[in-house]
Amino acid sequence: MTTKTSLNIQLLMTGNELMTGDIVDSNSAMMAQYLKALGLEVTKKTTVSDDIMLLSDEINTLSKTADILIINGGLGPTIDDLTAQVVASTINEPLVQHPEALDHLKQWCENRGVALNKPNLKQAILPEGCQIIPNRKGSAVGFSVTHQGCEIFCTPGVPRELETMFTEQILPAITKNSPTEFALDVTRLQLFGLGESNLQKLIDDNLADWPTEIELGFRAGLPLLEVKLTTKSQKGKELQALYLPKLKTLLGDHILGEVIDKPKSLAQYVVELLNKQNEKITLAESCTGGLIASLITQVSGASSVFEAGIVSYSNDIKSQILGVNKATLEQNGAVSKATVEEMALGALKLANADIAIAVSGVAGPSGGTEEKPVGTVWIAWGREDNIQSQCFFIPVTRTYFQSYVAAISLDLIRRVLINSQEIPAYVTDRGVKKP
Amino acid sequence: MTTKTSLNIQLLMTGNELMTGDIVDSNSAMMAQYLKALGLEVTKKTTVSDDIMLLSDEINTLSKTADILIINGGLGPTIDDLTAQVVASTINEPLVQHPEALDHLKQWCENRGVALNKPNLKQAILPEGCQIIPNRKGSAVGFSVTHQGCEIFCTPGVPRELETMFTEQILPAITKNSPTEFALDVTRLQLFGLGESNLQKLIDDNLADWPTEIELGFRAGLPLLEVKLTTKSQKGKELQALYLPKLKTLLGDHILGEVIDKPKSLAQYVVELLNKQNEKITLAESCTGGLIASLITQVSGASSVFEAGIVSYSNDIKSQILGVNKATLEQNGAVSKATVEEMALGALKLANADIAIAVSGVAGPSGGTEEKPVGTVWIAWGREDNIQSQCFFIPVTRTYFQSYVAAISLDLIRRVLINSQEIPAYVTDRGVKKP
Repeated sequence: MTTKTSLNIQLLMTGNELMTGDIVDSNSAMMAQYLKALGLEVTKKTTVSDDIMLLSDEINTLSKTADILIINGGLGPTIDDLTAQVVASTINEPLVQHPEALDHLKQWCENRGVALNKPNLKQAILPEGCQIIPNRKGSAVGFSVTHQGCEIFCTPGVPRELETMFTEQILPAITKNSPTEFALDVTRLQLFGLGESNLQKLIDDNLADWPTEIELGFRAGLPLLEVKLTTKSQKGKELQALYLPKLKTLLGDHILGEVIDKPKSLAQYVVELLNKQNEKITLAESCTGGLIASLITQVSGASSVFEAGIVSYSNDIKSQILGVNKATLEQNGAVSKATVEEMALGALKLANADIAIAVSGVAGPSGGTEEKPVGTVWIAWGREDNIQSQCFFIPVTRTYFQSYVAAISLDLIRRVLINSQEIPAYVTDRGVKKP
Repeated sequence: MTTKTSLNIQLLMTGNELMTGDIVDSNSAMMAQYLKALGLEVTKKTTVSDDIMLLSDEINTLSKTADILIINGGLGPTIDDLTAQVVASTINEPLVQHPEALDHLKQWCENRGVALNKPNLKQAILPEGCQIIPNRKGSAVGFSVTHQGCEIFCTPGVPRELETMFTEQILPAITKNSPTEFALDVTRLQLFGLGESNLQKLIDDNLADWPTEIELGFRAGLPLLEVKLTTKSQKGKELQALYLPKLKTLLGDHILGEVIDKPKSLAQYVVELLNKQNEKITLAESCTGGLIASLITQVSGASSVFEAGIVSYSNDIKSQILGVNKATLEQNGAVSKATVEEMALGALKLANADIAIAVSGVAGPSGGTEEKPVGTVWIAWGREDNIQSQCFFIPVTRTYFQSYVAAISLDLIRRVLINSQEIPAYVTDRGVKKP
């Protein structure tokens, strides 16, 4: 599935704290993202603890297949920082004090008004003949050596030190020697309302002739799904001009948009549409308990499209604040078409808004009945002159139920705002037919 | 440095999204933490992309040295999910449909009221003779095989599915065969309102004689902090009886509770206290925009302590629904002591509740003024006859601001409910003295 560049780049991440899980490694992702932006891929990533034997074995093994090996961590002043020692013994060079590294350390201490101590001095003792890589952000300089035809870069573990060194020193060194041309073209679409397996089936059934030149990737980031098209060849780009429109037609209004800078949240799409159309939204939430309001107000600039939301958890409040008829509640119950529609109208009246969402459901784990089991939810949405409503059945855990109901609600409003006439897949899959 | 067990456990993490850095791998840290709690260590972690050759090579290589190999990811329904296929070819077994896995898939679809489709069916096609590992949280079952004397566990990439499967199925299977003795005693305290470095300093300054037999670990899981005391020896257990009370006295009401089964959320502690005292809470949220309501209603059983919350984003709504005096808003502005106190009283009247939280602040990034810069927030809280209020300055990103303000608000209410007379550290650190 993956198209390879001819450069084999591997990462060796070191550190006990990575192995125990006390720290989640974000350094490797950071380096991979910078490489990816240049069309380069990491072939393999290995993580081991601060152990001389393990480190030495890995350096020997990895440098046999890698063109570039980036070792991260183990350059600090303490006794568990072993990288220089292990690299020196692996490439069979002695450890010597490097004047350039020593100067850096002296300067670094002087700038901070601290004395150069013995543990710090250790950071200038590096394999003989290695190339020093400056560190603008910290005390530990990096260094590079060549072993078995592989260029090995040793880098500090502190993320901001690594990032500066990686972008300013190592990336230019890698791309300078790289034999490949980097012409990567990536298109990312954000979708809502289609599961990963349904999406795969849709494509299999309708675009069976999908060209191998365009790599298709899926990424489920609840509640959204991202589809990524990657092409590396000129032919791939030409094919993409043909196949991307086909894919877009197939996915229809399940597509929220194309990722330009970074992915957006569903609420962000809704807030942007509301802003564009100069409309205001209000909410009457029962089972989602304020989650929809919270998602909307997480978006910077929400205040211009949102004035108020009511979390009406009890029946009393539904009547008292939202003006739902007591008879409606008595005859139909709180989880009913009539109640959510009256909630939506009540919220519109109260909040000086153009468009409303109202939800009432059984989030569970308790509170279900035979007629309305846990997972049942009524959603009403729309403008005052056109309130629609739909019952769904989503029998999952409480938290997931709330998230999914909030997402569906936001998407239903998005579809009103773009005048969509489609029936979304989640209505077909999860919708319950009720009068 | 590291104590070694004789069990060689290795992880093979798979997925293009891990290699490109689109996703930061937290699964391996999670598994390592669970293993560590049992005194077990991960020897090596390897990450490769969804590539048949690479995966096959790694499985062959790693299973030569590992006793236990855990493969994570690649069990989904799409074409880039390759684990079953690669494992089958590596151990030289055919892929067959497993009735047990098929039953699971059918049940899973039935529970969700969705149809079993072709891509899903792929998830039941697994190496012949493998052992199925149930998945309580998702469609993909795991499986295990033995290869070159190594036990290989294949697990799903979705974190919550992995966590359930790992703790309920795989850990017991690993420890059953493990040659080491685990006599571990773990106590976990959940804290709020103390930073990690402040906590460390408190302990260094006040419990300098902390015994080495009790390992102290901190785990920051915003907004809470967890302190973990681990002892492995009889002597450690005896010392803990002495030092745990000392630690508890030192940390005071920053302690929410001891973890019995699994950690609780701050809202869960509040809901439990309200339930116990038979009191009801209401909310008037401006800058948190429904987040506090959402956190409370995420707790199962919240309906007995929560009837209504108002998200009053605009000034009009603050007057109109909550009855805040227009003159108060004009003279003091929305972010003021007088306004939040009137919001709290208004919410109490409206919602038939005993206790209220009201918040109004400048979440940013825009909307700040010289007098009230981004990060300023007023919180009012308490019962009708004793509304307290406090201004805080928390100049961080919008989302983090909202989360932190919600957490402080919940904690202030928790302190009212337990009759705490302490001034919490966050008031000392973040509180602004204003009339």
